[in-house]
Amino acid sequence: MAVQVARVLDVLDGEEAMVQKKSLGIVETQAVTFSPPGGLLLEGGERLSTVTLAYETYGRLNREKTNAILILHALSGDAHAAGFHKGSKKPGWWDAMIGPGKAFDTEKYFVICSNVLGGCKGSTGPASINPATSKPYGLDFPMISIGDMVNCQLHLVEYLGIDKLLCVAGGSMGGMQVLAWLSRFPERIRSAIPIATALKHSPQQIAFNEVGRQAIMADVHWKSGNYYGGPAPARGLSVARMIGHITYMSDASMEEKFGRQRKEAIKPLKFTPNYEVEGYLHYHGDNFIKRFDPNSYLFITKALDNFDASASRPLHQVLRGIDARVLIIAFKSDWLYPAYQSREIVRACKLAGVETSYCEIDSTYGHDAFLLEVEEETYLITHFLKKVFNGCEVTGEYEI
Amino acid sequence: MAVQVARVLDVLDGEEAMVQKKSLGIVETQAVTFSPPGGLLLEGGERLSTVTLAYETYGRLNREKTNAILILHALSGDAHAAGFHKGSKKPGWWDAMIGPGKAFDTEKYFVICSNVLGGCKGSTGPASINPATSKPYGLDFPMISIGDMVNCQLHLVEYLGIDKLLCVAGGSMGGMQVLAWLSRFPERIRSAIPIATALKHSPQQIAFNEVGRQAIMADVHWKSGNYYGGPAPARGLSVARMIGHITYMSDASMEEKFGRQRKEAIKPLKFTPNYEVEGYLHYHGDNFIKRFDPNSYLFITKALDNFDASASRPLHQVLRGIDARVLIIAFKSDWLYPAYQSREIVRACKLAGVETSYCEIDSTYGHDAFLLEVEEETYLITHFLKKVFNGCEVTGEYEI
Repeated sequence: MAVQVARVLDVLDGEEAMVQKKSLGIVETQAVTFSPPGGLLLEGGERLSTVTLAYETYGRLNREKTNAILILHALSGDAHAAGFHKGSKKPGWWDAMIGPGKAFDTEKYFVICSNVLGGCKGSTGPASINPATSKPYGLDFPMISIGDMVNCQLHLVEYLGIDKLLCVAGGSMGGMQVLAWLSRFPERIRSAIPIATALKHSPQQIAFNEVGRQAIMADVHWKSGNYYGGPAPARGLSVARMIGHITYMSDASMEEKFGRQRKEAIKPLKFTPNYEVEGYLHYHGDNFIKRFDPNSYLFITKALDNFDASASRPLHQVLRGIDARVLIIAFKSDWLYPAYQSREIVRACKLAGVETSYCEIDSTYGHDAFLLEVEEETYLITHFLKKVFNGCEVTGEYEI
Repeated sequence: MAVQVARVLDVLDGEEAMVQKKSLGIVETQAVTFSPPGGLLLEGGERLSTVTLAYETYGRLNREKTNAILILHALSGDAHAAGFHKGSKKPGWWDAMIGPGKAFDTEKYFVICSNVLGGCKGSTGPASINPATSKPYGLDFPMISIGDMVNCQLHLVEYLGIDKLLCVAGGSMGGMQVLAWLSRFPERIRSAIPIATALKHSPQQIAFNEVGRQAIMADVHWKSGNYYGGPAPARGLSVARMIGHITYMSDASMEEKFGRQRKEAIKPLKFTPNYEVEGYLHYHGDNFIKRFDPNSYLFITKALDNFDASASRPLHQVLRGIDARVLIIAFKSDWLYPAYQSREIVRACKLAGVETSYCEIDSTYGHDAFLLEVEEETYLITHFLKKVFNGCEVTGEYEI
């Protein structure tokens, strides 16, 4: 069977190549479309006749197909986890962790990053065309769950010809998808790395998401989700994103980065942002509309809030008897997904008899730490993957 | 000089009186208007020709005028701190702390609660009529500061014939006003009780306020502040208030109060709030417009963000040599005004040689604790006030 492999189309040359020497170079997002008979049944009972999933791959699949790692992204992430898109100087969102010689070493492993169902970066979501109406779904898009996202990813993994993944890994919402893989398809994974995540959202986490949703829905341009073709609810999405960014940082990291530094507006009006921290939030809030669909924000945050790894029965009962290894990582200053939530995952795994390692990294970066604490994460993940991979019989040969 | 005294107009009778036996009964908000020659000069350089301040008083001023306590409120508070307004079953915002036999014992002390400049509950603010245009100020209202609020309160205290206050006390923004009294008019106070407050806002505190302001200003009805007479930016204010409420509670108190309990909507639509915590936020958000002016929210939050008790020179230098006693109270689970910010106040007071007591109450209520931890606060404040009041020579006689 034909297997999708890394699309390293080009390499950067000259000076840039020196700086980027551990980069994957130019990569391309791929997409695969599934139309299961009768459509894809969602956990909420609705069906999607056709689902497209965007993904990228890096490195090469070995002949035994035992070196595949699935990377899962957070709320605002996408399939572009590493390398550079042609013409862009901005690498993928986890480039520091994925590439030759990095934590997810593309010289050893075949790394896949899958976008989520409900997203807006190449996968089926509320901005996609509803085949029943030939118009964008908008709010007619069915409610989706973290489980639905993972069910789609299983299609992708099978499409890529992989029977068993060496590892599934991700932070934040990516970590929830890891937990869903672990509880639904334990026979399909050798190991799992949930980072800075939770078995379920606390009321505080639900509350922050709800305020973001309300900000979007309060925008006069939202129009009950029917804004496609007209102006988008950009200001509402911006407010939602600003709230998000506050929760991603910590009190300490904000103090270090901004303090009470002021920025001088050229023509200050009343309530023109005049602190650096305000400027930072505005920058990220205002730019978010360029890359994210407000309706996707609604559907995905609701999937996050509704996720409960122990909903049907306690996770330790679900996990009993599985032989996947688990590495759980949390960060001390993360107050959005506090370490106690990771310890709850540890407890469930240990009770289930799953071989579990836990590390609480002493970072001041808050929730953003899962993107920034590269050195510590690299150390932990490199050794963990090596141990898991050593258990696989491999010839050292690759398909291509 | 005529002195304003408690307006205990009525007492509740029958069964209700039994329940409310420690209540002040019915009280009324008063107002005083000042028109200093040349107008009131604000710290920003602008002037207000006339300023009205709403206030309430409880208890009786003694003949020596040594038993007066000024209570200062938080962002969304008002002059109605205790007792009941006629026809209302909802007591003032600090009724648990102010009244006969309570922490601020109205049988011993004359308690004043002053609304703030910029507010919307009877004091001059952006919704007031601008004498220059005969229309509401809106955004033509001058930028105000915590210092301006306190300068107005000095007018009120002088109007009430009080030369020296026994105490100034308040939580959150009220605590900032206490700090401003302490640094500006130390000769006018015998003691100060700043609760759950800060010398200045951290970038995280600024960030939360800025998101609230943006939510208001993103509302199509805001119209650059010129919404008076038309629909108000209610949804924007609601989002701002919802953010506020998340920061007032703690992760633990939300968990205890709501968990992941769901509420069933009668006709659930997509994104109808379906968790209890969402319902709580909506209730408080949606009701806020009934009692608060969105422009006041902008002006007051900006005054909070701009406050810096050490702006001109370090607070310990400002406070050196003053003989007021200070009691500082913080709460362990308060993450909006974390205890370390109170310890910074303690440090400044100690360095200045001010007699300072500090207590960090072990509460799970978060920032709301200053309104809820009545028993602990009562114990601390009762003893503190007693000690301060013992230093005053009094005959035990009252003016009225």
